[in-house]
Amino acid sequence: MANEIKVAPMHKLIKRAGASRVSEESAIALGKALEEIGIKVAKEALDFARHAGRKTVKARDIEIASKKVLGR
Amino acid sequence: MANEIKVAPMHKLIKRAGASRVSEESAIALGKALEEIGIKVAKEALDFARHAGRKTVKARDIEIASKKVLGR
Repeated sequence: MANEIKVAPMHKLIKRAGASRVSEESAIALGKALEEIGIKVAKEALDFARHAGRKTVKARDIEIASKKVLGR
Repeated sequence: MANEIKVAPMHKLIKRAGASRVSEESAIALGKALEEIGIKVAKEALDFARHAGRKTVKARDIEIASKKVLGR
């Protein structure tokens, strides 16, 4: 599986959360976790788009899918 | 809040989930959702690192934090 989410932005995210030091492996792990969630959300969003008779995934599909997947 | 997660990789993720067409707004929305989750996971991971007496966030912190936040 290709990694779309790169390590550098994950490093920055962990820093922004307040960490003073971030291991390379932790940035890789966060990217992997977010990528899995992202694919899950995108698949749900695609279902919503198809259900609405659209071929294009729209922001509202992602929003409803992320609420469902992430329980928000 | 700065956006660490860029739009292009989100576009690719949604495509990889099977979408034939992806609106720009949906890629932005997915990036925003993943960034929020990423920060949440990173904050939990930082708590675990501190609890273990470390200043460095390690992969195991991210793994335990993502299980907690994402309920996996």
